[in-house]
Amino acid sequence: METLDNTGTHKTDKVSILERAALRRVLAMLGNPPIEIVLWSGEVIGTDHGTPVARLWIHQRRNFLRLLYRPDLYFGEAYTSGEIDVEGDFVKLLEYVDPLEQASARRRLWERFKLKFPQLASHTLARARDNIHHHYDISNAFYQLWLDPELVYTCAYFPTPTTNLEEAQQAKMDYVCRKLRLKSGETVVEAGCGWGALTRYMAKHYGVKVRAYNISHEQIVYARERAKKEGLSKLVEFIEEDFRSITGRYGAFVSVGMLEHVGKAHYVELGAVIDRCLSSSGRGLLHSIGRDRPMPLNAWIERHIFPGAYPPALAEMLEVLEPGRFTVQDVENLRLHYVRTLEHWLARYEGASEVVRQMFDETFVRSWRFYLVSSIAGFQSGSLQLFQITFNRADVNELPWTRRYLYENRQPRAPL
Amino acid sequence: METLDNTGTHKTDKVSILERAALRRVLAMLGNPPIEIVLWSGEVIGTDHGTPVARLWIHQRRNFLRLLYRPDLYFGEAYTSGEIDVEGDFVKLLEYVDPLEQASARRRLWERFKLKFPQLASHTLARARDNIHHHYDISNAFYQLWLDPELVYTCAYFPTPTTNLEEAQQAKMDYVCRKLRLKSGETVVEAGCGWGALTRYMAKHYGVKVRAYNISHEQIVYARERAKKEGLSKLVEFIEEDFRSITGRYGAFVSVGMLEHVGKAHYVELGAVIDRCLSSSGRGLLHSIGRDRPMPLNAWIERHIFPGAYPPALAEMLEVLEPGRFTVQDVENLRLHYVRTLEHWLARYEGASEVVRQMFDETFVRSWRFYLVSSIAGFQSGSLQLFQITFNRADVNELPWTRRYLYENRQPRAPL
Repeated sequence: METLDNTGTHKTDKVSILERAALRRVLAMLGNPPIEIVLWSGEVIGTDHGTPVARLWIHQRRNFLRLLYRPDLYFGEAYTSGEIDVEGDFVKLLEYVDPLEQASARRRLWERFKLKFPQLASHTLARARDNIHHHYDISNAFYQLWLDPELVYTCAYFPTPTTNLEEAQQAKMDYVCRKLRLKSGETVVEAGCGWGALTRYMAKHYGVKVRAYNISHEQIVYARERAKKEGLSKLVEFIEEDFRSITGRYGAFVSVGMLEHVGKAHYVELGAVIDRCLSSSGRGLLHSIGRDRPMPLNAWIERHIFPGAYPPALAEMLEVLEPGRFTVQDVENLRLHYVRTLEHWLARYEGASEVVRQMFDETFVRSWRFYLVSSIAGFQSGSLQLFQITFNRADVNELPWTRRYLYENRQPRAPL
Repeated sequence: METLDNTGTHKTDKVSILERAALRRVLAMLGNPPIEIVLWSGEVIGTDHGTPVARLWIHQRRNFLRLLYRPDLYFGEAYTSGEIDVEGDFVKLLEYVDPLEQASARRRLWERFKLKFPQLASHTLARARDNIHHHYDISNAFYQLWLDPELVYTCAYFPTPTTNLEEAQQAKMDYVCRKLRLKSGETVVEAGCGWGALTRYMAKHYGVKVRAYNISHEQIVYARERAKKEGLSKLVEFIEEDFRSITGRYGAFVSVGMLEHVGKAHYVELGAVIDRCLSSSGRGLLHSIGRDRPMPLNAWIERHIFPGAYPPALAEMLEVLEPGRFTVQDVENLRLHYVRTLEHWLARYEGASEVVRQMFDETFVRSWRFYLVSSIAGFQSGSLQLFQITFNRADVNELPWTRRYLYENRQPRAPL
């Protein structure tokens, strides 16, 4: 409640000694980063370290202390609601705040408990559908505004830093096919196929038959239509089911950007599915956002963007593969490629923000901006990783002699 | 005790129904592999599956049942003592026996217990010295008989399958330097440097200053002498100490073939050493024999060749890196390169077996033959892996954009 004191100014305008001290302490903990903070009273808490890279406006005292104490959750909420604003380098600002987020993540007992006992936070099939629906069924038109024309919503692979997004997504799909050593006529199963870009790519460029699973209704409808238009209906089949429903046996298993949504409690199940469906000479590829050690997902992202998601540490990803005695052949960390991918997405998103505002509202615009910006900061600071794991059965000796073949011809393959 | 029955033949010559049944059951468990077994009585237990790839002679009944029950330990012992012999493809024979070894490894409760509670089998400094002394201090002259001229006693890297051993060891060392992105003038610390081949290579070809640690006295003496002869004394320093004694800060940390001897209980300690000695922009490389899942080391190898050794699963190797928040950049499995390396070693070893017999005795010759052959079989069957992990600190963004640079110029670098 705002009240007027006898000087006529708002009581809430004053910054208390406690508030100022708390802020200064937090800034000191972060090593006094070059950030300028403009408080609701107009008071500026500056930096002693040269020109600030960003200015943070805190428009109101409400939620100020919880912003300091739980930035992992409340920074995003305050930005989305307009209680705070950022001028200057938003990514850099979030990178500076990152240690604070990590510290508060470690404080969250319930989160750490869930890490130890993942079955308590396990995704039933119904929960999995809800979680996926929340994010991926927003509207295809929305994603078309800022993804590449093939609608690839996972980390791209940039053969050179100046490759554009379309080419980088093509290059990523080709890279995945090379890592899988796909041979024309083979069968492939894809778990979590998004809008079907990789499915179509594998069929079109490598002549394989693909069965692709996804529980997002909107995506499956789109994927089917597009495959039909491109004359690929005989080679690809889209199934609106969870990975647990996969049947049949295949020469290759691929999953790009699904593991983040599976939940640790189900890694063994996923491993059993791969074991069941992979032929004796089969190869597999798992591509997932990850961590350099186990840590809960950022609380704001979990609540507002990806309910139920969890980016695993590399050792946790291996829990999928160890029980089935799969052999890891290759692991590549593409973290900086995700920074680049997200920068492209953000630029396109900002270019289309007026349309997004009309489709949804200002809160939505800010919320998705924060999600993209904080993801860039996460990959940039090394708080998030992108692991691509290639594996096969233990006794497969038909392997490329070195990884050199992956780099011999930089051009993605022409359609067959 | 042998006794004569009234027909005048040795009682022990007879193969009992029980013994025959046990053998047939074991062969059935292995899928009736194309192996022929000649028993002490002269009786041949054949294969129904075409020409046998190998013939196993079991010269005496003594130890027959324990050979079947604990082949992981007694096969090597029986071969070394001459109780059994192998004609034909020894490697293939051991590959066929591998599932049996794995099954008996899983049965060994104490081994599984040690996997769960590694601190109980922990290596004190004194124990570590004993273990290393047992293997590496046999005699430099012995290793010179069958290793390459640089005395590299770890998996080589064969750019093509026909590369010879000398070139492949050079290529391996160069590959390691490229993965570490060494820059002239930098400092490097090497944990477990063997006879100093990589140490010298890094100094000579990349102009870095190297401090190398090793607890094998024979190796250190050899390494120092050789570095002196080659005029590298100003760039390299060999220290006869355990990795725990590493001091100073370095641009790169490298360890090739040491982790197998560290013991799981000390992974966290090793991680702390890396954390302490690696500069903020430092890169690291861990190269180790591994597994596709946690499993005790073969009992015979542990008892006779590498006391205290343990090849970790990839997830276990990550226990070194997770606590210090190191980011895994790249993992490569070079399993088949170890098969090739060992094949070269075995051929040279066989060529020098007369000399080895004179240096030691027939038991030693057979023991080391069994070690080399069974290692080939282990890597060939996928029971053993070779992981090369490249890592750096979490916030390092000065990274090569792709891995393509590793393959751009296949020639190892010329000396500076």
